[in-house]
Amino acid sequence: MHPDVKTLLQSGAQRTDAALERLLPSPDTLPHSIHRAMRHSVFAGGKRLRPILCMEAARMVAGTGEIPAGAPDLGAALEMLHTYSLIHDDLPALDNDDLRRGQPTCHVVFGEATAILAGDALQTLAFHTIANLPCFDYKTVRILREVSAAIGTGVGPNSSLPPGMIGGQVVDLEAEHKKPDLATLEYIHRSKTAALITASVVSGGIYAGATVADIARLRTYGQSIGLAFQIVDDVLDLTQTSEQLGKTAGKDQAAEKVTYPALFGIEESISKADALVDQACAELKEYGNAAATLNNLAHYLAERKK
Amino acid sequence: MHPDVKTLLQSGAQRTDAALERLLPSPDTLPHSIHRAMRHSVFAGGKRLRPILCMEAARMVAGTGEIPAGAPDLGAALEMLHTYSLIHDDLPALDNDDLRRGQPTCHVVFGEATAILAGDALQTLAFHTIANLPCFDYKTVRILREVSAAIGTGVGPNSSLPPGMIGGQVVDLEAEHKKPDLATLEYIHRSKTAALITASVVSGGIYAGATVADIARLRTYGQSIGLAFQIVDDVLDLTQTSEQLGKTAGKDQAAEKVTYPALFGIEESISKADALVDQACAELKEYGNAAATLNNLAHYLAERKK
Repeated sequence: MHPDVKTLLQSGAQRTDAALERLLPSPDTLPHSIHRAMRHSVFAGGKRLRPILCMEAARMVAGTGEIPAGAPDLGAALEMLHTYSLIHDDLPALDNDDLRRGQPTCHVVFGEATAILAGDALQTLAFHTIANLPCFDYKTVRILREVSAAIGTGVGPNSSLPPGMIGGQVVDLEAEHKKPDLATLEYIHRSKTAALITASVVSGGIYAGATVADIARLRTYGQSIGLAFQIVDDVLDLTQTSEQLGKTAGKDQAAEKVTYPALFGIEESISKADALVDQACAELKEYGNAAATLNNLAHYLAERKK
Repeated sequence: MHPDVKTLLQSGAQRTDAALERLLPSPDTLPHSIHRAMRHSVFAGGKRLRPILCMEAARMVAGTGEIPAGAPDLGAALEMLHTYSLIHDDLPALDNDDLRRGQPTCHVVFGEATAILAGDALQTLAFHTIANLPCFDYKTVRILREVSAAIGTGVGPNSSLPPGMIGGQVVDLEAEHKKPDLATLEYIHRSKTAALITASVVSGGIYAGATVADIARLRTYGQSIGLAFQIVDDVLDLTQTSEQLGKTAGKDQAAEKVTYPALFGIEESISKADALVDQACAELKEYGNAAATLNNLAHYLAERKK
């Protein structure tokens, strides 16, 4: 890992965690059970990749070298949305997973009812956090449009946007135990993972005052690294142990999920991820040195495989 | 029922349904299963009370005699949120209810996984709909703050607002099979039902350009009718059959839920509901004839008991 990336990931995670600590209700606030369940999953050791991408996109667009004030709150909202999707994903009715980031999953500790409601409440709190961002109202509304499109079924009022996170989730579940095809695979990856990653980068840019041209570049960057991220994730599921992953390894194969490695093999999947990272970085050439951090992050995503 | 109310409920439901039909993805849009599940629950015959309250509050504040353009979309968003909460409420891990509005519940028809995701997607689509309302951005942001506070755990960043819907849900589940006390009961009612009803009235007012004084009056009106509504609901659960209710009757008693009738008996509960309705109507005196509709709606809520 590039030494700058290590520092960046650490300080970005610290900023995100400080915002989450402030924004999430205290575990001593009534009703206790749900606040403890929300915190259990939010503070279970995530890398905070989406908030970090958001804050770094904001820093690049702001052009001051600093992360704009308030951007960590937006990052925290994105992490709440990611965590809500993981809590529901892990439920017995869905992926039925007991382990996540090396910790027992929310429903294992708090029961199914509380886990369902904790996921619901994290989605709500994310939108409430966006509603209270310290920025001009027009930015809040644009961020809200971007984020709510990215996590839906993909065909809401703003249907020019790519498929949304829940849409990908549904198709992923339906595709189990079926012969995988590339169109389905790409739909799942673009919607299930890349959509929220793209929204993280784009909304960070909007927060910092991005132009239409900035947003187009950030969108391409986000889509490319989002897809690369999911490909690497699928490879890791095959090549690493549960201990290394902090979650059950080999479960894609067990569930006969459609994945890149299942379709193309490990080597070609890795080449594809590398090509996507190059594509993402090429998109940010215009920003010169200011893009160094987003470039390093893109390479980090593809290097996780090693 | 007041004849004007009957007409109002019919035309309000038609307007809401037209907006929902336009805003919800078509059942033929991929992924099919989730769009069909969302529509199954949304179009299962609800009264559209929250959208109607929202549109009528907007009409009163606008002062033109007309429902402002775009207000039915806001109403539809509120109905999506209500429906999402019902879908999750009915899940086996929560209330485990097979029947709602006379129809089999979402998980019975589509399975638990799809029902969980359909609820999630309805929450998301509601916020996406709010993000795309045809109004000034400052109104969108204020509506977003109001609504997201009303449906959360009640102690988000904007903690001066009353407890939220999910908070009420959690305390309701935890209070089963325990000796009921008034403080718990009021917390549950204010948060589980009254919060979203209040947000419906208040956000309709904001959409139509309400002043701070308008909002304060609408808030009191909403809280009073919201509480009255829940009291009447609890009474109906005891006094009507499953067929009359369109859902399983007597389930509060079976689950030993904390309710007004359990604590005060049926007669005193009805008096309490009537007093709340009077209180709500008194709040709208300033608006003269323009408040007639909201007054009639308040009385209708308390008359459902007959």
